[in-house]
Amino acid sequence: MAGIASSHDGMSAARRKRFVKKERFVSVEELTEKILRGSRLHLAKGITLLESITSQDKEAGQQLLLNVLPKTGNSIRIGITGVPGAGKSTFIEAFGLMLANAGHKVAVLAIDPSSTVTGGSILGDKTRMEELARHPNAFIRPSPSAGTLGGVHKKSRETMLLCEAAGYDVILIETVGVGQSETVVRGMVDYFMLLVLTGAGDELQGMKKGIMELADGIVVHKADGDNLRLAKKTVKEYRQLLHFLQPASPGWTSTALPVSSLQQTGLDEVWKTILTFKETMERTGHWEGRRQSQTKDWFRSMINDRLIDAFFAEPGKKEAVAELEKGLLEGTLTVTHAVDRLFN
Amino acid sequence: MAGIASSHDGMSAARRKRFVKKERFVSVEELTEKILRGSRLHLAKGITLLESITSQDKEAGQQLLLNVLPKTGNSIRIGITGVPGAGKSTFIEAFGLMLANAGHKVAVLAIDPSSTVTGGSILGDKTRMEELARHPNAFIRPSPSAGTLGGVHKKSRETMLLCEAAGYDVILIETVGVGQSETVVRGMVDYFMLLVLTGAGDELQGMKKGIMELADGIVVHKADGDNLRLAKKTVKEYRQLLHFLQPASPGWTSTALPVSSLQQTGLDEVWKTILTFKETMERTGHWEGRRQSQTKDWFRSMINDRLIDAFFAEPGKKEAVAELEKGLLEGTLTVTHAVDRLFN
Repeated sequence: MAGIASSHDGMSAARRKRFVKKERFVSVEELTEKILRGSRLHLAKGITLLESITSQDKEAGQQLLLNVLPKTGNSIRIGITGVPGAGKSTFIEAFGLMLANAGHKVAVLAIDPSSTVTGGSILGDKTRMEELARHPNAFIRPSPSAGTLGGVHKKSRETMLLCEAAGYDVILIETVGVGQSETVVRGMVDYFMLLVLTGAGDELQGMKKGIMELADGIVVHKADGDNLRLAKKTVKEYRQLLHFLQPASPGWTSTALPVSSLQQTGLDEVWKTILTFKETMERTGHWEGRRQSQTKDWFRSMINDRLIDAFFAEPGKKEAVAELEKGLLEGTLTVTHAVDRLFN
Repeated sequence: MAGIASSHDGMSAARRKRFVKKERFVSVEELTEKILRGSRLHLAKGITLLESITSQDKEAGQQLLLNVLPKTGNSIRIGITGVPGAGKSTFIEAFGLMLANAGHKVAVLAIDPSSTVTGGSILGDKTRMEELARHPNAFIRPSPSAGTLGGVHKKSRETMLLCEAAGYDVILIETVGVGQSETVVRGMVDYFMLLVLTGAGDELQGMKKGIMELADGIVVHKADGDNLRLAKKTVKEYRQLLHFLQPASPGWTSTALPVSSLQQTGLDEVWKTILTFKETMERTGHWEGRRQSQTKDWFRSMINDRLIDAFFAEPGKKEAVAELEKGLLEGTLTVTHAVDRLFN
């Protein structure tokens, strides 16, 4: 346990003992070792530790993360979003299987800031992604249970790092639910992919604002059978449209590709595009640059969250804000006044 | 002075006296009256008071704002942005003159979070908008001097309210400079307009990300002479493009119009479109709804700014954050750790 004890954030011997007891005699050190050696069981245990809200577990979780930190970062982080019905699970299963069969280690995570039950909504996907879930090279993790957006964000990022330490070189992060999940996922991945169906015009009307401009690549899904001709036309339409938009990543031209998960066509092209993307970004320094700004942004937003949370946790603050807002809307107060009153 | 003295945020008699002295015997009450009666001189004085950073002036400025608050809100607030070279000043002069000649009272303000010198960059525009500046129905105000984004934001909003109290029923707010000015302006106006030139394809490549989706209307400018044919083609292209994007305002279909400020064509159509927009939004309740959320957002963002400012004003905090960021990028710290250290 020397490594842990000497660490600046190490636990006291007593605490460590309690933790060891609780986790059925698996110490943080053992957990670290087993995760680094690729044990899926221990990876799952580690993630549970990171998601725990007891202060003791939190400390152990952070210790674990600190231990594995030097082994993180060696993956391609891919975010996947899609219009409703686009077939995200089907795509992830097909795409993940192709990569897993080719020897890649594939982790599938989900971000769902809107989930309100423990376990999250990807649990269902796990049964739907049956074949991928059984593959020895794959690891599927349900989205963390509900909490603040910042909390879900934190858990997902830390889970991603732990997966990387366990040797997963492809991380697929799925956006689930509504709200800000796309922006959160865009802020933690290297490559962001949008799954759409045929009929760009009608579809875009229901698409979330600005989502197209976050995408490094668009997959026109279900490009098979009777749908194939229309899918190819849709690909052309999206390419035209992308030409008008600012690129999501500097120096990269986002493009659209037709894919059939059913017939397993186009999946290889998607992967090749992602590899070309990586090469391009690495050449220009934007690969590492983006990751560094993502980390900094994460840090800043956590500082921000803490300050806001602490402020609103003070007794009476929520009520005071609500009361002042009423005055603002009634026109009996100026905003500057309201803020001054709140802080004086 | 009864009205002021009895107000909950009223100044002490001594302070009021000092203020009265400083401002050449113009009391807050007199200022209020003169502004409500439409004196441009006093409106300018009032804005200067709101922009002042001395605590005494601040107090007087807020008192003034509180006095006029019931008389604010009766205008159409129009934000105007454009690609470089689109001719914003020329458009504002022509559009403003048309409205001023028709009996509207037109105030022109500018938001420039990037300006670094007192006076701001619209000063030059004032001389360029020569005819409008001389019109008795027009009021042109340079952008407030540099400061934080939040500070510029606050000043511009309060200036807008004061102009409304002075009877200006059309407020044109121009975005100047780079950075976040478009988002700031979108957050304080009813109608947001984007000025572009011909050649949508090439132009959009240099356009700011997401800007199209903020616009309630697009003006294809310099639609005259040899340029007219191309401008009409560009209008069509933008209309097609807008069809693919989410509307900037619920229930409103953003559209594109050709305008020549030189030949004064198309200006009337722009105004008619804005009036239709107002009617549509009022019918659905979104007109007032948006204004209310803008006020709430402004309040929340000012609370946020205060918390962050106070935090970073504590001795050593900036240095601590920089040091922790270094550790994060070197991979010797986790983000959760870094935040914990900062707050413990």
